[in-house]
Order: sequence, then C-alpha cells, then structure tokens
Amino acid sequence: MILPAFYVDDIIKRALAEDINYVDISADYLIDEKQRNHAYFIAKADGVLCGIDVAMRVFELLDPSFEKKVYCRDGDKIKKGDIIADFSGRTTLLLKGERTALNLLQHMSGIATATNEIVKLCEGTNAQITDTRKTLPSIRALQKYAVTCGGGKNHRFNLSDCAMLKDNHIDACGSITGAVEKLRSKLGHTTKIEVETRDLKEVKEAAEAGADIIMLDNMDCDTMREAIKIIDGRARTEASGGITKENVREVAETGVDIISLGALTHSVKAFDISMKMK
Amino acid sequence: MILPAFYVDDIIKRALAEDINYVDISADYLIDEKQRNHAYFIAKADGVLCGIDVAMRVFELLDPSFEKKVYCRDGDKIKKGDIIADFSGRTTLLLKGERTALNLLQHMSGIATATNEIVKLCEGTNAQITDTRKTLPSIRALQKYAVTCGGGKNHRFNLSDCAMLKDNHIDACGSITGAVEKLRSKLGHTTKIEVETRDLKEVKEAAEAGADIIMLDNMDCDTMREAIKIIDGRARTEASGGITKENVREVAETGVDIISLGALTHSVKAFDISMKMK
Amino acid sequence: MILPAFYVDDIIKRALAEDINYVDISADYLIDEKQRNHAYFIAKADGVLCGIDVAMRVFELLDPSFEKKVYCRDGDKIKKGDIIADFSGRTTLLLKGERTALNLLQHMSGIATATNEIVKLCEGTNAQITDTRKTLPSIRALQKYAVTCGGGKNHRFNLSDCAMLKDNHIDACGSITGAVEKLRSKLGHTTKIEVETRDLKEVKEAAEAGADIIMLDNMDCDTMREAIKIIDGRARTEASGGITKENVREVAETGVDIISLGALTHSVKAFDISMKMK
Amino acid sequence: MILPAFYVDDIIKRALAEDINYVDISADYLIDEKQRNHAYFIAKADGVLCGIDVAMRVFELLDPSFEKKVYCRDGDKIKKGDIIADFSGRTTLLLKGERTALNLLQHMSGIATATNEIVKLCEGTNAQITDTRKTLPSIRALQKYAVTCGGGKNHRFNLSDCAMLKDNHIDACGSITGAVEKLRSKLGHTTKIEVETRDLKEVKEAAEAGADIIMLDNMDCDTMREAIKIIDGRARTEASGGITKENVREVAETGVDIISLGALTHSVKAFDISMKMK
Amino acid sequence: MILPAFYVDDIIKRALAEDINYVDISADYLIDEKQRNHAYFIAKADGVLCGIDVAMRVFELLDPSFEKKVYCRDGDKIKKGDIIADFSGRTTLLLKGERTALNLLQHMSGIATATNEIVKLCEGTNAQITDTRKTLPSIRALQKYAVTCGGGKNHRFNLSDCAMLKDNHIDACGSITGAVEKLRSKLGHTTKIEVETRDLKEVKEAAEAGADIIMLDNMDCDTMREAIKIIDGRARTEASGGITKENVREVAETGVDIISLGALTHSVKAFDISMKMK
Amino acid sequence: MILPAFYVDDIIKRALAEDINYVDISADYLIDEKQRNHAYFIAKADGVLCGIDVAMRVFELLDPSFEKKVYCRDGDKIKKGDIIADFSGRTTLLLKGERTALNLLQHMSGIATATNEIVKLCEGTNAQITDTRKTLPSIRALQKYAVTCGGGKNHRFNLSDCAMLKDNHIDACGSITGAVEKLRSKLGHTTKIEVETRDLKEVKEAAEAGADIIMLDNMDCDTMREAIKIIDGRARTEASGGITKENVREVAETGVDIISLGALTHSVKAFDISMKMK
Repeated sequence: MILPAFYVDDIIKRALAEDINYVDISADYLIDEKQRNHAYFIAKADGVLCGIDVAMRVFELLDPSFEKKVYCRDGDKIKKGDIIADFSGRTTLLLKGERTALNLLQHMSGIATATNEIVKLCEGTNAQITDTRKTLPSIRALQKYAVTCGGGKNHRFNLSDCAMLKDNHIDACGSITGAVEKLRSKLGHTTKIEVETRDLKEVKEAAEAGADIIMLDNMDCDTMREAIKIIDGRARTEASGGITKENVREVAETGVDIISLGALTHSVKAFDISMKMK
Repeated sequence: MILPAFYVDDIIKRALAEDINYVDISADYLIDEKQRNHAYFIAKADGVLCGIDVAMRVFELLDPSFEKKVYCRDGDKIKKGDIIADFSGRTTLLLKGERTALNLLQHMSGIATATNEIVKLCEGTNAQITDTRKTLPSIRALQKYAVTCGGGKNHRFNLSDCAMLKDNHIDACGSITGAVEKLRSKLGHTTKIEVETRDLKEVKEAAEAGADIIMLDNMDCDTMREAIKIIDGRARTEASGGITKENVREVAETGVDIISLGALTHSVKAFDISMKMK
Repeated sequence: MILPAFYVDDIIKRALAEDINYVDISADYLIDEKQRNHAYFIAKADGVLCGIDVAMRVFELLDPSFEKKVYCRDGDKIKKGDIIADFSGRTTLLLKGERTALNLLQHMSGIATATNEIVKLCEGTNAQITDTRKTLPSIRALQKYAVTCGGGKNHRFNLSDCAMLKDNHIDACGSITGAVEKLRSKLGHTTKIEVETRDLKEVKEAAEAGADIIMLDNMDCDTMREAIKIIDGRARTEASGGITKENVREVAETGVDIISLGALTHSVKAFDISMKMK
Repeated sequence: MILPAFYVDDIIKRALAEDINYVDISADYLIDEKQRNHAYFIAKADGVLCGIDVAMRVFELLDPSFEKKVYCRDGDKIKKGDIIADFSGRTTLLLKGERTALNLLQHMSGIATATNEIVKLCEGTNAQITDTRKTLPSIRALQKYAVTCGGGKNHRFNLSDCAMLKDNHIDACGSITGAVEKLRSKLGHTTKIEVETRDLKEVKEAAEAGADIIMLDNMDCDTMREAIKIIDGRARTEASGGITKENVREVAETGVDIISLGALTHSVKAFDISMKMK
Repeated sequence: MILPAFYVDDIIKRALAEDINYVDISADYLIDEKQRNHAYFIAKADGVLCGIDVAMRVFELLDPSFEKKVYCRDGDKIKKGDIIADFSGRTTLLLKGERTALNLLQHMSGIATATNEIVKLCEGTNAQITDTRKTLPSIRALQKYAVTCGGGKNHRFNLSDCAMLKDNHIDACGSITGAVEKLRSKLGHTTKIEVETRDLKEVKEAAEAGADIIMLDNMDCDTMREAIKIIDGRARTEASGGITKENVREVAETGVDIISLGALTHSVKAFDISMKMK
Repeated sequence: MILPAFYVDDIIKRALAEDINYVDISADYLIDEKQRNHAYFIAKADGVLCGIDVAMRVFELLDPSFEKKVYCRDGDKIKKGDIIADFSGRTTLLLKGERTALNLLQHMSGIATATNEIVKLCEGTNAQITDTRKTLPSIRALQKYAVTCGGGKNHRFNLSDCAMLKDNHIDACGSITGAVEKLRSKLGHTTKIEVETRDLKEVKEAAEAGADIIMLDNMDCDTMREAIKIIDGRARTEASGGITKENVREVAETGVDIISLGALTHSVKAFDISMKMK
C-alpha cells in the first residue's frame, strides 16, 4: 500500500465504528464465532480498480486469521465479471467488514474509473487532468490517490503547499503584480504561485508578474487559445470551471497544460463491485 | 443543529486539518490578519438545502468573531439565485474555511436534493424512501441526516440496531424459520428482524416465521405485488436492488411499504452553491 | 472476541495510559526486561465469567510474545478456585498489565454474575431481564455485552435506535396519541416506539395509539397485572423502576414481558478474581 | 472545577457519543428545536455530593445557551429532597444530556458517599482512608477526585508516581533489603517506596531497609498491632486487604496510619439523584 | 493567531494533560478556587518573540475568565526586561498553565531568535535562510512558523509537497536525468523537483535535466561558486550541510539562493522568559 | 522497550503523519514498491545512545516485513563511527521512516549525552542530577526517559505526583509552616512536599515545618552550604537555578543532594547519527 497504513487504518476504524457499533446482532447472535468462510470480490462493470489494499485492510484489522489472494492491483483495468480478490476468514468478521470494505472500494474505484474516462478523452493532447480541493471530509488522500490510479495528476493537496491568488488576495495588494511580488518575498523556494485570471488583461499581467501557473477561469476555448499565446511558455496554463466529459476534449485541444475538474472527487458515482460468500 | 455539535466539530476539524495543514500561504502571507469581510452563500441551482448549520460551524470554529444571518434552513426548497446566508468575519479565516464549508454544504444538499426528487416521484403512493448503509466513511450521520432533510427516512444506522438476515445467517441456522427463532431468543425487545428474500417461497417462510420486515431483493414488480399479497400485512415490505429514478414510481405503485436506495448516499452529485465575498 | 478488537483496544489503551503513565518504577527499575514468567487467573468466588478476551487482550497489546491457554469462556459459570486462564510473558509486562486486566475482568464478571442471579430468579416466567442506559462513560458496550453473558438481554443502546416517549415528548404533542402518530410519520421502519406510562389511563391510550412497547413505570404488581390485561398483546410490556432482587420474582409473575434494571450496570460489585504469578 | 475542563470534556464527549449516536429520535423528531425548559436535580437519598460541575458541563457542551444555579458543591452533605441545582436550556438538549449527566453525577456521588461513611466510622483514630488503583477504565481521575470529596485521600495515581514492592520485585533482587537498595539508587528524590509485607519477619526487614511505607497485607488486627510496634515510626503503615464497613473501625484502632479499600472505586453503588423537568 | 486554533489546541491539551495529570496537588489543595491574580511575562534576554498567542491560548483553554493585554507580537524584537504581556485569571489556573505556556513560548522564541541571528549575518547577500524537516515530533508547524517569525523561510513541509531526489531515488532510475524525467511525468504541476548533488558533474546533469532546485550538499565554498556558475540561473541553488553561525556568511557570499540549516529546529536553545505573579 | 509501545506509537504516528502527509512523491513515484534495501545507523560523534527502540519502532509501524539487528542499547556509550543497528525493509518505507526515526533518535541521544556529561562532572560527590518540568509538548516521557539513560534521575513527572510550594502557595496560607501543615492534611501518604526557599530564614522555617525536600533556589554556594547545615538531614536538599556545565561541580561539592537542570530538556542539542543505505 502506498498510502501509509496507519493513516488508512484510522479511516477504516472510524468507518467500522460507525457501521458495527458494538455487536453485529445478526451475525454474532446466529453464526458460530469459529466458523470460517471463503469470499471474493467480483466486478459488476468495466472500469479502473482502486482501493483493493484498503478493502483488504478492513478485514485484516478485524481478523488476524484473514487470508487473501489479490488478482488485480490499483490502477488495473477491470471488466465486468473479473474476480478481483479471493479471501477467507471468520464468517462473522467477513460479514462485519463487508459493507465498510465495499463502501471504500466502490468509492475509490468510482473515482479512478471516472478520471480514466476523462484522461482517455484527452489522449494525444498536451493536457494533464487534475483534481481539486473539492473533496469529501477525512478522505482527501484516498480520493487524490484514486485520481492518480485513474491516470490523473494531483493539484495542490492543501493551502500550505501551493499559493493560489484569487480576487481577495489580489485586492489586498492592489494588483496581481503587487500580490505576486509580496508573496515571492515571503514564500519558501519550494512553493509555486498560481494566479487565477478571468480575462486577457489579467492573463497578461500574471505572466509578466512571473506567476508559475496561470489559471484560466471559466474562459471559452477561443479566449483560452488567446491566453496561451500571450503567456507564451512563461507559465503553465490551467483550465478550470465548467468542464465536463462533453467539452473536455475541446478544452484540451486549446493546448492548455492542465485541466482541473472538481467533479472527479465531489460528485463520485460508486463503481459496482460485489462480495460473494461461498 | 440537530446533529450533536461535538460530533460535527470532529468532522470539521479533520477536514480543516486536511485542507489547511498549518498556514494558508496565500491568505496568511498577503492579507492583514485583522481585515474583515462580508460574504454570502448563493444557490446555483434548484434543490433542497442541507448542511447550513454545519457550514456555518466551520467558520465559527475558525473565528470567534464570526457573525451570520441565515435565511434558509435545512430541508428548505431553494431556487437558483437564492441567498442562503450572509456572514462576516476575518478575511483570512473566511478564506481558510471556504472550501471545507462548501464541500460539506454541497455534499449534504446534493443528498437532500436527490432524495427529494425520488420522494416526489412516489407521492400519492404508500412507499417511504430510505437510505442504506452504503455511505462514506466518517460521515454516515451527516448523510443519513441529509436524507431526512430531503423527505426520506433512515434505514438502520448500524449492525447493532436492527437485525438483517441474509443467506449466510440463514444457512447457519438451516432455515429462515430457524434463524428467526434463534435470533428472537437472543435479541432485546427493542430490535426488529428483517429477512432478505429472493423468491416467493422465501417470502412465505419469512412471513410465517414472524419477520418484522421482509426485504424483496431485486424482484420485478409483478413478483413484488405477489409477495405483498402473500405477506398480507404480517410484515412491512421493503423493495431493494436496482431501483432508479426511472423505475421508482412503478416500484412504489406495487404497494410496497419501503424503497431503499444505496445511490442516495454512495453516488452523490454535489449541489452547486457558491460563496461570494463582497 | 465478539466486541470489535479495535474498539476494545481503545478502552484498554486509555486504561493503561492512566495506570502506567510512562514507566513502572517498581518493575522497570528492578526486574530484567527479558525475564519471563507464568501467571494464572483464579476465581475467588462463584459466578459467571465475562471479559476474559478483553483481559487477555491487555497483555497482548503490551507484549507481542505473550502466550495463553484460556480454560473458561465468557458466559461460563465458574466456581471459587477455578483456574480461568494460564499465561506467560515478560515479567515486567505482566506486572504492568495486571491491574488493568483485573479491573476490566472483575467489572464485567461482576455484571454477568449479578445479571445471572436475577435471570435465575425469574426462571419459568415469561419475563426477560434487560439493562438500561444507566451505564458508565466509555464502557457501555462492555457493560451491555456483560449483561448478555449473564443471560440478560439488551435494551436500546442509544437515543437513535429506539424511541422512548416520556412526559416531555408527550406534552409537546398534546397527547400520547398525537406523539405516537407524529413520530410514526418520521421514524424509519426499523425503529420501534416505546411509551412510558404511569397509570392505567395512559396504558390504554398507549395501546390504542399503537405503541410497540409500553413501559409500566413504577407500578405495583396489581396495577401491572391490570395493565397487561388492558394491553392484551397489542404491545410488549416492560416493568421498570424500583425493581430489586427481593421483588423481581413477584414482578415477573405478573406476566410482564420485560423487566429492566438500572442497577445491573450503574451499581456493579466487582467479582473477585486474582492473578497469581508462579 | 478542579479537574481540568479539557480532561472532563473528553470523558463527557465519549459518553455523549455512546448515548446519542447521531439524533435523539424521540426528542429531535417531536419537540421544537427552539423550545426551552427548566429542570432541576433533586437528591433521593442522604449522602455526599460529587460531580455537580461535571454534570453541569454535560449540558454546557451541548447547549451554549444553558443557564444554571448550583446550590450544593462537591463535598457537601446532602439530604433526601434537597434541590442540588436549577437550570434551563433548550428542551431537546436537556433531554439529550440528562442520562449522561446523571450517570456521572450518581457514580461520583456514590463514591463520595461510600467513602464518607468509612471515614466517619474511623473518626477519632489516626487512620486515613485511601483508594487504590482498582478503578474503572478512563475515569480514574473522576473516581479518585470523588474519594477526596468524601473525605478520603488518594493512594498513588499510577505506576510511575510511587514504587510498590511485591513478591516478584523482591524475588528479582533476592531480598526486601536488596530491592529497596537497588530501587533507591534509581528513583528520583520525589518518589516514595512502599513495601508489601505478609508477616512480621518481612515487616522487620522492610523497616530496617528504610521503606517509606509498609503495607500490612491481609493481616489480622493483632498482627498489625505487633507490626506497628516493630516499625515504631520508621515508616508509615498501611492496612490493606479484606477491609469492610464491618471491620474498618477495628482496623483503624490498631493505630495504623492508612487504610486502603479497593471497593471504594471497584464496587460503587450509584447515589440516587433525579432530574425533573418543569 | 495564524496557526489554526484547533491545531494549536491539540498540542496544548496534550501538553497540559502531561503536566497536570488530574489535579495540581500544590495549588488545588492550598489556594481558594475563586482567588484571582495578575501576572506578566518578562523577557530575560534580547531576542525575537514567538508563540505569544500560543502561550495566551494555554490560559484561555484552562480559564474562560482569563483576561490579557499583549504588548509584543510574534516576530517583534524584544529586549531583556521588556514586559511582553499582562494578564489575570484564577490563581490556580494561572499556576496550572504556567509551565506549559512557558515551555512553548521559550521554545518558539528560541527558534525565532536563533533564526534571526543567522538571517542578520547574511544581510546584503542574496541568500534566504530556511529550515529543514529535522523537527521535533508533533510540533513541526510551530517550529516552522517560528522560523518565519525570525525572518527565515520554510523549506518543504512534508514528503508530499516537494520532491527531493537523493541517491536511492536516482539509482532506482539509472541517472539524474532518468529520475527527473520519470518524476515529471507523474507529478502534479504545482510541485517542484529538487535534486541533491555532491559534485560538479552531478550539478551539471541536474541543471540539464531541468531540476527546479539544486542542492549543493556539503560542498566547500569554491565548489559552490563553481556550481552556481554551471547552473547559471537554470535552477535555484541551495547550500546544505555543515553550515553554522561561523561559516554562514561565507556561504551566503557564494551567491547561493538558499541556505538550509537543520539546527534551527533540531538543536533549539530555549529563550529565557519568566512569568511573574503580582 | 521500557516505555509502553502504544504510548510511543502515538508519538510516532503523529510524527509520520506530519512528515509524510499521504504519499512520498519522491520515493513512491520512482521506486518499485517491492524493492528492498539494507541500511544502518552510524554514530557521527561520541556520546550516550538513547531512543534506538523508538527509532526501530518507526520502521516496524510502516513495514511489517522490517528486520533488524541492534548492536547498541539505550544507555550505551557510543563512539564516532560505531554502527548502532543494521536493518532491512522495503526501500520506499525505509525512506519514509528515515527522517522521523532520526529526529527522535538524535533528540533522545542528545539529552542522554548532555545529561551524562553533567553526571560525570559530579562524580564522587553526593549530588544526583535531575530534570525538571521544562520539557517539550507531547514528549515529556521520551525526554525524562532519556535523562535516566544518561545517568540522571527524574524529578516529578507532573503536578499530581509531588507537591512543590512556591510563593503563591505560601502566601495563600500565611506562612511556610501553615502551607506545609494544610497540605499534609490533604495529601495522600505516597506524596512528598518540596518547599522552594530563597534565603536562610525560609530554609529554617521549611526544615522545621517538616518539608520532605527543600529547594535552594538560585543561592550561591556559600549560602547553600549554610542551608545544608541548618537543614541538617531533616530534608533532602535540591539546588536549582542558573546551574551550568561550568559551575555544576562547585555546586555538587556543597554537599547538596540533588541538582536539577531545565536545560537538559529545554535546550537540547541533537546528537549526530546518520542513516546510510547500502
């Protein structure tokens, strides 16, 4: 697992605590604690897998005697009917972990699958697909990791690791130029500055002020093309706002470097995977 | 706020910790710590609001000097362009809280809106719409609360508060009848037993065994109608599996008591709300 | 262990942190860290065992080299002098865990033993013995689990999983009938409604309003018998208030379905078990 | 409050999380969120109050608009019928906090009351009454504080703050003398050494070895008197083991300095206090 | 406070829990809980203040009635004898908070003061002074913030927010060029790549591979000058390793852009500030 | 490990969470997850080792396949060039753990080394060297343990485990005598009383009042000698305030029992240890 185990464990334990409370009155009251069972995960659709280590970890945390064979890895393309993993453990614990494991696996695979769809739509262009900070509470790392499994890249993780200048920041300093200069004098050398722009005048000023990245916010494709010409390689360009499956290819063809989509993480469709017990 | 504040606060603090890390290098480095600003939330679509107290709480946790006027309450119908709340506080803290507040508000309103759409499709029938345990880690309570704001009802919260008998439980006891009896002898008197059934034979046995609720799992509407006849009021009936906006009305018209949909919480589309600073 | 290990571990870690602080200045300063020892738990009275997995877990968390043979399981009747478990580990860690393990084991066995005494007093009647929400902070699940090990059953776990209508709720709606109706329209289908009644008029109204459970609060046995007649199977009946070892049999013989006792968990007498090192 | 608020708050939040889960389906679904109510705590027996600040804090954490008048303080003698505190707040939140507040208040007052009973039995003797480490998980500080409110004193809080030598420690060093010497060479100057003794030979050796405190473990009163003579003021003396309400006075009259009782905290009888709403 | 309050609060609560345990047996047992007192912080040396908001927050968390006047802000130069803040609160709580507040304030001011000394030594050169990841557990953010208060800048906060290529990374890819290329294809656009170099050959390759930052690791000043010539503005240059107060000016005069010093945070000398009560 | 593993684990997890965030973009993106490597710790100076178990634990928490040979133990004298431990594990996880492990090991060894230097300066005298409560937040136990590894002893751990009377406490009771008496009547028998004195008059009163320990606060050596004569064995004596490497021998030769130094934990110089990968 690339994500640190202790970080993932915290998420899983909170989820299990929500889901189990203290006993599973169906399983604990009916099934012998020592009974063991086999089970497997099977894909119910085509897509990109993500979260299999996390899902397996759910059972490992519940059951030290849990055993597994994992056939597909995070980032693998999977087809409807594929067996993703085969595993066995105490029946009561398989039943206690089932929902939590699937909730995580389906959510992460949903993100990877949707990201991959967008990435493939832009194949052959220069554009990289990235996420945003529009994520769900407590699971940003899981979501951002899932975006990379789908072939996307990660935008900044938090407010400390890349500066992004919007109106309020710029107003506070009088101008884009003023804001970039003031910030440059305070930022460490490892940190980039991105400037949000809404028209070509702002684009020009941002490029001249030395922004590392210029966001072209909610611009139409013609304007973006114009902006990219003005910037002329002085900064990386990012298209953002109102981008969907329908228009992403057109946006990518403007020559923009990055396309960021909030929907990758804020509007996730669970990817259908079932757990079957034998 | 109906949800306990200390519970909501934990979710918010984890989300803020993810999003801020330690400083907001854009705002903290450019804007005077004492500067104050006004801002408001505005709906960008029609739907049902949910999470406004939670969103306001984000700012209250960051800024003791935060002030607010809230115009719409959880559960209210809102229209594109509606001002949901007006508020003011220290500019740097409004900026630090913005993303976390919107992520929560958009997610919860997305659930309430989607639930309400389903609820309205079933108006005039007997059917109640409920959620499932297919929720996202750490925020089940937020999601279940949002379902009620959209007019839905809550299915069981966790594995301790209602028994649900599936194949594995039933196999362990030899029969539905055996499982229900064994469970009845162990369960407290406040807890109901639901039995999952896949055909009319199972439906009959479950009804005779005295199940409180009988789930009609992935049945077509004709079979469900038949099942409801067989049950004849001896148990409440729940339709589950493969139910969508497209077919929910037809399912509701079978006379089933409850329709449960995983998608309400596992495949949420964020509801579009913006924060504008003045 | 039926209780989830990660849940139990949290309780144990907090208890160990309280009890050890950072070093055990007696053992760590005098005994070689590598020295190993055998020890065993022995019952000092007759009763019902509960918490042996929890107690063993204390040592497992402290010492990865811990080994055990457990002779009695939760729920087993034990006699003074019985050896409950035999185990070995690093001496310093056995000493560090001893107090925490015994505190948990004695408390849980105390509950199981007291519950069992009540349960046996009611043998041959219809009455089930249940706990209440009068539990100690952080360990409700341990306590409720112990009640089941003693042969009792669990009343509702929390305020979300069963509705209980008292004066204030009823006053807010004008009448028992109004309260039950309003609640029915809001509750999910998995949740029962219990109504607290103090006289036969209320009993009658509760039964007619369709309460699932009717609590007969602090009634004498004659009144309870009358109430049970009025209810006539329309709801389950629960006796509560002022019930002790002395009068529980008499209460049970009224024909009431459930008898709930706060003392099972709020006034626990530790069951005497010793740890001996060899 | 003498106990640090943030420490108490953690205990309360865990207790509330157990007790509420996410909504109070009785109160939240029936009572207007804005409705306010008055309530009071009334003693149902004679005893010593403890935990009133903790109980009030439960409501303060739930309801920022909570207001209170507190008439009795921790350590006060109270009589059946005494009004302990009068308070008001939002009705739904009073109902949500009631059980948690009472569980804490009744437990702590139960300890203070039982301790006080023992203390009074020993009045006029030299003996101080103390607790032990036989406490319940997570609430040792609450319990030890309650002992002081009842007029008792605290034995060591944890394994770091006073050394206690038992057989295993002594065996590891060959003799009491060896153990005390070795320990003295390692301990900081703020820490005392107590030696557990089971006969007069051990008592003598402990006194000569320079123990600060000598525990007379499970000795009869004649042996204790003899032991006290042998020690002759060289160490403080502590009686422990098998001490009850029935024999404590006799033990105290031996002239022993300290009498420690595990039952003060491991076998607590809740003190009866009710909350009434007006 | 720029650092998020809830983040700082967690650090403070852990520190207070360590320092108080449950009661302050000196203050709580001797001083009336209602007694109030005035106190102030006074500098015992010349330096740069940091942590005054954090220190004040200690008392605010303990005592809702705490009041303060703060005369110096984080980043201010202070002189021996300066009164930093004047405050009042309940005496017992001032005493409970004193040590924790001073421990934090002295540590943070120690960092700011030492950083400032280095910054001043480099005045007039191009060089920026930065910290490293050589920080103390749990308080990295406090330490990095203190560096900025002393006039330094922050290097990367963690392993996610800037890539740093060392031997192992480079070996895994065959060459600096290979490593930079592979990484560029995976990294998001907001993230920079720094390459650690140990000789001029590596410097040249790193510059040609397009590294954003080139670390000149443990090089002498002549080699660094040479390296800077080779890089010729294609990347930012960072001197690291073996830099002290004695040689930092000489290093700065090589023209290097950044000088990073582990000692700023791993070998902190507490800055002397006293709390006096009136 | 003497320090409880679960306690150490919490510190490590918080440190790793700070340092890794979610991925190590250098290692995770460049090095095959399955690649394994050998590494070792090597001393870069002469001193006393402390924290090797803690450092190894960092890798064990990250990597279940981690293997180690540890050649030096906590408290061992080490020389520049000594190999402290040899270990192997997954390369990406060795890289993720490196900084956290070294930060802890260098800090703890720094404390042990500095303590040992002071201890050796006082060899042949009566004086014991102790720490104070001037520690860093969250890691007091690590720091106090390191002091013992360097040959020092621990002063009180927290405000609950030894009483220390300063002006404010004494003023509140009118006199040293009054304060000691009042406290003696409230304290448990396991707890000592230390009185801070600033002149010989106070020393005399403290000795007569029966203080267990008398602190000679910021006195010169002649005064201390005088004080020790006055006390004449009635209490242990502790020198505190302004003690450094330069004057500690002179202080020790006054015959004082204990010398406490805040600098041992508040002004720590990291001890240089490197991790090399093979």
